[in-house]
Amino acid sequence: MNSPNNTTLEIDELNTWELRKRAQLINSLGGFKSVCLIGTQNKEHQTNLAIFNSVIHLGANPPLIGFIQRPDTAERHTLSNILETGYYTINHLNEQIYRQAHQTSARYPNEISEFDVTNLKPEYKNNFFAPFVAQSHVQIGVQFKERINIALNNTILMIGEIKMISFPNECLSSDGFLDIEKAQSITCSGLDSYHKTVRLSRLSYAKPDTTPHDID
Amino acid sequence: MNSPNNTTLEIDELNTWELRKRAQLINSLGGFKSVCLIGTQNKEHQTNLAIFNSVIHLGANPPLIGFIQRPDTAERHTLSNILETGYYTINHLNEQIYRQAHQTSARYPNEISEFDVTNLKPEYKNNFFAPFVAQSHVQIGVQFKERINIALNNTILMIGEIKMISFPNECLSSDGFLDIEKAQSITCSGLDSYHKTVRLSRLSYAKPDTTPHDID
Repeated sequence: MNSPNNTTLEIDELNTWELRKRAQLINSLGGFKSVCLIGTQNKEHQTNLAIFNSVIHLGANPPLIGFIQRPDTAERHTLSNILETGYYTINHLNEQIYRQAHQTSARYPNEISEFDVTNLKPEYKNNFFAPFVAQSHVQIGVQFKERINIALNNTILMIGEIKMISFPNECLSSDGFLDIEKAQSITCSGLDSYHKTVRLSRLSYAKPDTTPHDID
Repeated sequence: MNSPNNTTLEIDELNTWELRKRAQLINSLGGFKSVCLIGTQNKEHQTNLAIFNSVIHLGANPPLIGFIQRPDTAERHTLSNILETGYYTINHLNEQIYRQAHQTSARYPNEISEFDVTNLKPEYKNNFFAPFVAQSHVQIGVQFKERINIALNNTILMIGEIKMISFPNECLSSDGFLDIEKAQSITCSGLDSYHKTVRLSRLSYAKPDTTPHDID
């Protein structure tokens, strides 16, 4: 039995919805998402910066991180720069830069760098080839490893290995946990909704016959 | 130049860290994550419920959703039930159930259902084969579509197609956006940190030569 306050929709009914409205709903269902800026440059040092809400942790050993690239219908400067040079940066958003970050999703021609039009500053360090975002508090330097084509809908899972990281000193706990809320990282939902977070708690490793307790 | 308040780590340095500490840090880097309970049952109607922090939107048309399954070293009841029956549910966490949800990650034997030990209630509706979580406010019924093995670290990307959804009436906007914050869905970071959210804003579709404005 459904609660009278709940809507239950079968896919056949949803398929009758207008395409954009349906896309908004489906995009909301996956829950809160990582939202990051991916920085690249081509061999001629033309930089590019693009917002992605599909970054995903794949494993710690080796340290692998992935993101989903939409179907390759339009020009995809991030994809072509990564395939050409092998390096990119993943930069967390925060409350101070999320509007500029959102603006990078506008369709600028290849010769215009989103760094310039949004006043997000490229930052180069430790001889890493790709540009970081100076205003981002958690920055990750990544080397491209593998491209996996998802035939079901022509998206691409791009996988890279983490090569360097940068974060505020005071956000690292003694057990290795990085407090990204303290670093002011934000999250997003759906296609266009941005949220900051409030910690409920960290919970201890779960074992049968005990109840998890708060840590910190 | 790095700020004196920032730590920059190269991977070679990180590789000297103790394994669990390194895993904590790497798990924190991907940003805030979707955190959901996946409900399944086998053909003998033995139910299983497990928490996953790797659910990812893959596309709206067709409506595809994925999650990452860790390497298949231990028994993986979720994986085997999905492969055996073809159906599963994805249920958002909320503040009222996240402790019980976390507890499902303890290693219970196959004959024990996490529904029973955590008092999360299985809910069956619309003749969907797999059990939903009654206390979850956003519920998704999924049909298994494809298993993609990621050779780099022996993880698996499991892809399914959304077949039905259930959510509180008042959370659906006229443009199709589902307000999952209003539905009390939460997010997580790292291996064990749970967070509720506070909306900053929804931003309009980005176009060159304009600045995104707040919507709603």
